[in-house]
Amino acid sequence: MKPPHPGPLARARLLTSPSVGPAVVRELERITGRPAVPAHATAPDTPFVYVGDTLPEVLRTPSLLWFHSVNAGTDALLSAGPWPEDALLTRTVGRMGERIAQYTLAWVLAECQSVPEHTAQHARSEWRRLPSELASSRTAVIHGTGQIGSAVAVLLRACSVRTVGVSRSPGALPEGFDRVVQAGSQEETAELADARWVVSTLPLTAATEGFFDDARLTAMRGATFVNVGRGATVDMAALETALRSGAVRRAVLDVLPDEPAGPGDRAWRLPRTVITSHSAGITADDDVVGDFEACWDAVAEGRTPALAVDTRRGY
Amino acid sequence: MKPPHPGPLARARLLTSPSVGPAVVRELERITGRPAVPAHATAPDTPFVYVGDTLPEVLRTPSLLWFHSVNAGTDALLSAGPWPEDALLTRTVGRMGERIAQYTLAWVLAECQSVPEHTAQHARSEWRRLPSELASSRTAVIHGTGQIGSAVAVLLRACSVRTVGVSRSPGALPEGFDRVVQAGSQEETAELADARWVVSTLPLTAATEGFFDDARLTAMRGATFVNVGRGATVDMAALETALRSGAVRRAVLDVLPDEPAGPGDRAWRLPRTVITSHSAGITADDDVVGDFEACWDAVAEGRTPALAVDTRRGY
Repeated sequence: MKPPHPGPLARARLLTSPSVGPAVVRELERITGRPAVPAHATAPDTPFVYVGDTLPEVLRTPSLLWFHSVNAGTDALLSAGPWPEDALLTRTVGRMGERIAQYTLAWVLAECQSVPEHTAQHARSEWRRLPSELASSRTAVIHGTGQIGSAVAVLLRACSVRTVGVSRSPGALPEGFDRVVQAGSQEETAELADARWVVSTLPLTAATEGFFDDARLTAMRGATFVNVGRGATVDMAALETALRSGAVRRAVLDVLPDEPAGPGDRAWRLPRTVITSHSAGITADDDVVGDFEACWDAVAEGRTPALAVDTRRGY
Repeated sequence: MKPPHPGPLARARLLTSPSVGPAVVRELERITGRPAVPAHATAPDTPFVYVGDTLPEVLRTPSLLWFHSVNAGTDALLSAGPWPEDALLTRTVGRMGERIAQYTLAWVLAECQSVPEHTAQHARSEWRRLPSELASSRTAVIHGTGQIGSAVAVLLRACSVRTVGVSRSPGALPEGFDRVVQAGSQEETAELADARWVVSTLPLTAATEGFFDDARLTAMRGATFVNVGRGATVDMAALETALRSGAVRRAVLDVLPDEPAGPGDRAWRLPRTVITSHSAGITADDDVVGDFEACWDAVAEGRTPALAVDTRRGY
């Protein structure tokens, strides 16, 4: 996670992937003070900085000083091959915390207020009072207590929800949480049993693959499960069992192990589930530019950017 | 709004309407230390306290010391006939502010996050990213800056929404508001043009009937209109025109001038509208008991309860 030396960076070329649009490219040129070069099939043998979504094999060379991901999730990048030693990896988070928090609260409150049921009833021109549920005083268990988990907790707490974080390494209480417990502890199991909502913001790493397994999902007693992290953190067969038994009351899945889901995917037929096509945490052009600029400034001053990814830990 | 003298109150009978369930009746008996009598077709000629939803004509006598409404809205009560002079009127608000705020935020975020569209798309087994909108930094204009309007503002502001209240008599800035403007002022017109959401929490009084008229609705420039107040505050023909022109982007109507709406009601066919059958601000038994007890304690101490209604103003 050491930043590249400002010296080589000053001479480095700027490469961008085809997925980076012209408006962003212009901003990257302004920030770095050099022209952006579209990435080709061959790697430059001089130092370069690369901004993009994926890193082609040919660019995984010692000349890569720094890769800035236009996405927040870097699991696909890191699992595609060994990460070039000494290459800095940074990512775009942008307003993702805010976006994912508003997505989560939207679905939590939509369930409490029977939004889909009211919409369907309206279509039938039917006047009938439907029950609503106050979110207040109920418990939300939020897996992941980083920037995104914390943003989710802050917003749920605004609706007087009790917020419990689950972390591999609980430290000082992050903003928004009433309590943080250790992943895999008895405290986690007890909180899952008490939870009205379980929200996962987990990244996909070797440690989180299949994290929501049979034991964890059947520890729930009627919680609604919201996954805004990564699809492969969930054992889908275990989720189906838990939905059928009622251990999981409903599921809102923004992500799936296999995306995009084809029309024949079994996930579409899970009971009481809505799949939202990985729409929760989009990154806008402004997010990419703003986050790249913050990283650039840090690197130019010899600091490790706050958005640097620990390539061994995976987030 | 003077409370009844504690003396007559000590001797008063307790009457309840048929709509008050046995669990609430038992609690009222506990609080007042006397048996509750079901209201009959004849009025007692000795002082009495009445708890219920409506006040039959025969009970509108000088013997009525105090009427506690199990609902928050008292427009129907007050418009049904002249209010007995000197009779205290109190109402149940309970957690209505909290409930209506969560309802409002649910529908605001459901629109931002395309909740109904995602639900429909899921039913078609279709994977397609849908656009979402951050609520942050957009403006909500909230008509009514009392307890309910303030609760709505607090919750919208938690999502970084800019909150503008509209009041007949702006005073000190109530909690949750960035600004309060005078109803009917040029400032209101300018804020309506800028608004992403217009939320009405207005009670129905002589001053608010038809308040959302053609001028007010066409002052909007694409706002979504949410009515959690009273249906008759809206000129429905003007709303239809504004929806058709796009001045009003969408409407979420918890209330209508004529409730319940029959299947042939024109309101069901308004474009881009959802009607939610007066479900936003239900009162639970706990709310009735808790609010009655607070009023009882105040009256016993010779104070005017905070939940007293100014029967001339209507709220």
